[in-house]
Amino acid sequence: MPVNLSAPVAQDLHPVAGVRIGVAEAGVRKAGRKDLTVFLLDEGVTVAGVFTENRFCAAPVQVCREHLQAGGAIRAMVVNTGNANAGTGADGLARARATCDALAGQLRLQPAQVLPFSTGVIMEPLPVERIVAGLPAALADAEEQHWARAAEGIMTTDTLPKATSRQVKIGGRTVTVTGISKGAGMIRPNMATMLGFIATDACIDPALVQPLVRALAGASFNRITIDGDTSTNDSFVLVATQRAGHAPITALDSEDGRQLYAALLAVAQQLAQAIVRDGEGATKFITVRVEGGKTAAECRQVAYAIAHSPLVKTAFFASDPNLGRILAAVGYAGIQDLDQTLIDLYLDDVHVAVQGGRNPQYREEDGQRVMRGSEITVRVLLGRGDAQATVWTCDLSHDYVTINADYRS
Amino acid sequence: MPVNLSAPVAQDLHPVAGVRIGVAEAGVRKAGRKDLTVFLLDEGVTVAGVFTENRFCAAPVQVCREHLQAGGAIRAMVVNTGNANAGTGADGLARARATCDALAGQLRLQPAQVLPFSTGVIMEPLPVERIVAGLPAALADAEEQHWARAAEGIMTTDTLPKATSRQVKIGGRTVTVTGISKGAGMIRPNMATMLGFIATDACIDPALVQPLVRALAGASFNRITIDGDTSTNDSFVLVATQRAGHAPITALDSEDGRQLYAALLAVAQQLAQAIVRDGEGATKFITVRVEGGKTAAECRQVAYAIAHSPLVKTAFFASDPNLGRILAAVGYAGIQDLDQTLIDLYLDDVHVAVQGGRNPQYREEDGQRVMRGSEITVRVLLGRGDAQATVWTCDLSHDYVTINADYRS
Repeated sequence: MPVNLSAPVAQDLHPVAGVRIGVAEAGVRKAGRKDLTVFLLDEGVTVAGVFTENRFCAAPVQVCREHLQAGGAIRAMVVNTGNANAGTGADGLARARATCDALAGQLRLQPAQVLPFSTGVIMEPLPVERIVAGLPAALADAEEQHWARAAEGIMTTDTLPKATSRQVKIGGRTVTVTGISKGAGMIRPNMATMLGFIATDACIDPALVQPLVRALAGASFNRITIDGDTSTNDSFVLVATQRAGHAPITALDSEDGRQLYAALLAVAQQLAQAIVRDGEGATKFITVRVEGGKTAAECRQVAYAIAHSPLVKTAFFASDPNLGRILAAVGYAGIQDLDQTLIDLYLDDVHVAVQGGRNPQYREEDGQRVMRGSEITVRVLLGRGDAQATVWTCDLSHDYVTINADYRS
Repeated sequence: MPVNLSAPVAQDLHPVAGVRIGVAEAGVRKAGRKDLTVFLLDEGVTVAGVFTENRFCAAPVQVCREHLQAGGAIRAMVVNTGNANAGTGADGLARARATCDALAGQLRLQPAQVLPFSTGVIMEPLPVERIVAGLPAALADAEEQHWARAAEGIMTTDTLPKATSRQVKIGGRTVTVTGISKGAGMIRPNMATMLGFIATDACIDPALVQPLVRALAGASFNRITIDGDTSTNDSFVLVATQRAGHAPITALDSEDGRQLYAALLAVAQQLAQAIVRDGEGATKFITVRVEGGKTAAECRQVAYAIAHSPLVKTAFFASDPNLGRILAAVGYAGIQDLDQTLIDLYLDDVHVAVQGGRNPQYREEDGQRVMRGSEITVRVLLGRGDAQATVWTCDLSHDYVTINADYRS
């Protein structure tokens, strides 16, 4: 059961001028399941992406990187679920390229103008012939209004589609930001078995789009974790269609730049948090905020130690304020000169530990009350400096085990 | 259900001259449960230990380090279960010291001659008055034959006591090595919620005992992981009673030294592996061997990435050869210049992946056959060098979640 997440309403998702989306059933995943999604991009759009840091990155990730580096105009993206085309060696690369070739042929583009994405089981050969056979139906389906369909089309173990949309005024014009994401397991930063696509019709210096997508990822998709497993296929792509008609943004720290960034970040964070809310077996949404570190990096390190700890996560599942497990995770996070006598711990507004020990005023029933909620903030004060970092995670439940023990069956 | 592990037979555990053990019920853990164990050491014994690297190390760990560094003759050790006395601040330290004071008083020793150990819930005040009240019963129980009772006395979520014993001939004399361990969750290297005590009557230069315990830990207790949580309380202590009557060992690389080391290592590895076999919810015992690395450290890094992956562990639980998850873990282990096209993967004798892709000869039913077993070896060849490393772990099952969601209730 997802945590405080509901399916997007199609009418709330504003189309982005210059982006059409088509969805089809190609039979890669299972019968009756939409598993093939095509994005068609008008001429003049700018595309940038960030991809998994997994050294076993999937064939489509390798091809995406190649095609983006080639610097040609990206005009189409194709996404299949049901098969990750990862751990597939040279043959997998050939199949990812064959997918691009087929779509390019039907659209009269060069193969390097197509970005491929795959998500699903690792180390199985991609059924490229089924994907190619499904392309005409996906192309025939292409419309600007199809963001909600796309959100469904890229789902794997997700229980709900994930999409959101915002509009802001820039230079007197309405600028739209609409995005979708998928992912529910094999989720940790850098990045997740996750795909994220955000498009905006904002007009922006093409050279700014790559730093922009990197900054957005760093504050959204790279701040979530479900099980600490970094996927082979993570991809997050930002499309700027340059169609809104305002004066182009030439600096991210301009007023227009900041406004656009805020809208993009709101969409990216909502999509990233939606992945955690729909985390495999999740029953709680947990914000881990670490303050008072010497650097943001060490705060993240502590936050991830807490967010990855199976013991902390099972305690949240049980609504059991067994909060010493959080202190233990802080202690093994890897800060060599950490002084435990400076550390305070809060659970929402409840002051649990002070100077490394139990707060004498702390009452078990207060911890219990917070633990029973479905949205919980863990706050750790390191007492070493002024840096801070936040990550989002979920609990570890029986259903996580069930889902991952049964994924292929 | 522990994996291929049975309770030790008391008669198989050879006593070690110079070590007497007494066990009692102090009411720290739960009614009717032996939760207090005392080791009494004769004059002239040498004691050395290694302790958790968790910066939130427990009060008893801090006191152990102090007392060992003080260099006095250690003559007693006291272990309670049911309460870790960790995350307890200055008050916790005072309670750990009070335990030592009480035992020292009854034995006419200095407090610094006592080592305290605690294991159990974190961040709860240690009921030191119950421990002190239980000491006379534990002392009255003390006998050389009580190793099996001690193995029971230190259990927490363990389902079976863990103990083993060996004898070797050194210099014409029979040398005994007997040890016990506990631990079933919050287990990862450096070290685990684990306690390990090994005693030998071997005669050995006291200066060698500390390097010896460190080497043993590095090849046994620091090579296991259950859930990747490093405990606040891990302690492994080696006692050499110097009573076997052979010429003292003055170098570990002498023939006698090697023989003793082999016997100690066999005991330490068996005790460490017993912890994994009794891992919370474990249904399989998994050996992860990584070969062909540039350094042993990078091999360990890859082995731990595999051994910690919840996705890999749930696949083992399901006996599902979803082996791409292993490749994914290899990929995110953090070796920046890893070349996926050099990597081979074996599951026992089955050659699953070759040059980073699925082996064309690999058949799903062969993977399935291996996965159904209860003892499985994962072998990864990195193709970068000659180093190798092995770690031992278990699967992640529903029972792990159940046990850790219910631990305090």
